[in-house]
Amino acid sequence: MAGGFAERVRTSFEAQAAMRHIGAVLTGVAAGEVTIELPFDDALTQQHGFLHAGMLATALDSACGYAALTLMPEDTGILTIEFKINLLAPGRGERFRMIGRVRKPGRTITLVEGEALAVDGGREKLIATMTATTMTVTARAGVKD
Amino acid sequence: MAGGFAERVRTSFEAQAAMRHIGAVLTGVAAGEVTIELPFDDALTQQHGFLHAGMLATALDSACGYAALTLMPEDTGILTIEFKINLLAPGRGERFRMIGRVRKPGRTITLVEGEALAVDGGREKLIATMTATTMTVTARAGVKD
Amino acid sequence: MAGGFAERVRTSFEAQAAMRHIGAVLTGVAAGEVTIELPFDDALTQQHGFLHAGMLATALDSACGYAALTLMPEDTGILTIEFKINLLAPGRGERFRMIGRVRKPGRTITLVEGEALAVDGGREKLIATMTATTMTVTARAGVKD
Amino acid sequence: MAGGFAERVRTSFEAQAAMRHIGAVLTGVAAGEVTIELPFDDALTQQHGFLHAGMLATALDSACGYAALTLMPEDTGILTIEFKINLLAPGRGERFRMIGRVRKPGRTITLVEGEALAVDGGREKLIATMTATTMTVTARAGVKD
Repeated sequence: MAGGFAERVRTSFEAQAAMRHIGAVLTGVAAGEVTIELPFDDALTQQHGFLHAGMLATALDSACGYAALTLMPEDTGILTIEFKINLLAPGRGERFRMIGRVRKPGRTITLVEGEALAVDGGREKLIATMTATTMTVTARAGVKD
Repeated sequence: MAGGFAERVRTSFEAQAAMRHIGAVLTGVAAGEVTIELPFDDALTQQHGFLHAGMLATALDSACGYAALTLMPEDTGILTIEFKINLLAPGRGERFRMIGRVRKPGRTITLVEGEALAVDGGREKLIATMTATTMTVTARAGVKD
Repeated sequence: MAGGFAERVRTSFEAQAAMRHIGAVLTGVAAGEVTIELPFDDALTQQHGFLHAGMLATALDSACGYAALTLMPEDTGILTIEFKINLLAPGRGERFRMIGRVRKPGRTITLVEGEALAVDGGREKLIATMTATTMTVTARAGVKD
Repeated sequence: MAGGFAERVRTSFEAQAAMRHIGAVLTGVAAGEVTIELPFDDALTQQHGFLHAGMLATALDSACGYAALTLMPEDTGILTIEFKINLLAPGRGERFRMIGRVRKPGRTITLVEGEALAVDGGREKLIATMTATTMTVTARAGVKD
């Protein structure tokens, strides 16, 4: 069922209060790829008035985790074990597009790659990349002992 | 002057709107070590009601960057080039203590290590670790081309 | 001059005794992309008879560093500040192809991505990915204080 | 039995042809901590005559993996899922000491930290740090699908 994973991702995304708190919007869900957009907001900035790198990381982390979730069986959840982010340019723009793409799915361990684009006028610029390792968990999805 | 770097860190921290937006408080500034605390807040959670990993990363990123800043000359700033976070346990607790410690200072490149502790009752638990690479920049501090 | 950077990479590669010691061969040099191949050798294995992850990392690290070098001015060198490798499958195959590609060049800091493919019969399989941060250095190229 | 894990580590280390090929020696095995030493050898160098970062990574990867193995049940093995290495100074010295220490053991996922020291005369210098994520596997230990 094509809509199955999309529904799961949407339901979970809406349950992430942190996404609402920063104003992030889920704008794309496909098998193995999820897009989240974050409008620029003065409330999310660092000391120079650019988007705080942590806010980028927050939305990118969700995009990567949900990208992995799209490929998982219905009764499972996803935990992010670790991620690395490379920050390439300041978080300057009208809004930011975070894309998570599964690079190598696995039964237990999945590798996801993310990129963050700053959108300004009609121009897009790559400002960060992420690699994230997720683990598939059953039952009490999302809880690591 | 012992107070010089502490004043710089406090001033910059107060200028980070993102820290206010998530309720983070600067609780310690020493040479090479900065502590930031984040009270638990339902607004910062993921779908299971625990602190979103990105919120941890946000406060930890600031703690690491400021730890590096304490060791830099007055006319310089700090850019985070990359960080990696290992997530060890759910973000469950009354509050979270983020500690950034310089592991290896350098004129251009500095390695900082961070740890995030969940504080619940009188107990503390390590829930995440970070390694961050920062670059020292002059003049237009904090702006990468 | 098209051959300029290729010549620099070849000369430097031949000066890397470690590449000879593991049997690595430079098989491709283009602007922003370098390929190194490593034939399987029992001398390079871990306890299960597969290629040791560190040997992959060694060849991949060189491929990424040289990919960055192809885009740098002639009087500069490249230092790798950090790299992360995700290991996706065992190092099983007749030979291994390591490809380093510059993702975001910069005057000082460059982000390079690498992938390691196991080649067996006519089949290729992705077995590892790398992200590496390099720094451009002048004069005593390659020496970090 | 105190010696159980030490024996397992020694047996596995001796089965790693790559360790012999680079001249690495297992010099310490304790619960949660393993030390490997690597004498300087011209055959392991990069283009400036220093130890190739990949050789450091190779010995450090083994030290970290074995540190995790010391804490695992007898019928299990360890896979390294990913590691990140920060390179702090050139690989200059008479020999190099790699120490892997478990930071957070887990039933499935373990976080290990490593450090590489250059030893020259009586002096030791930190030249690299690693964070590695390992996964515990049963049965066909060490083989990831």
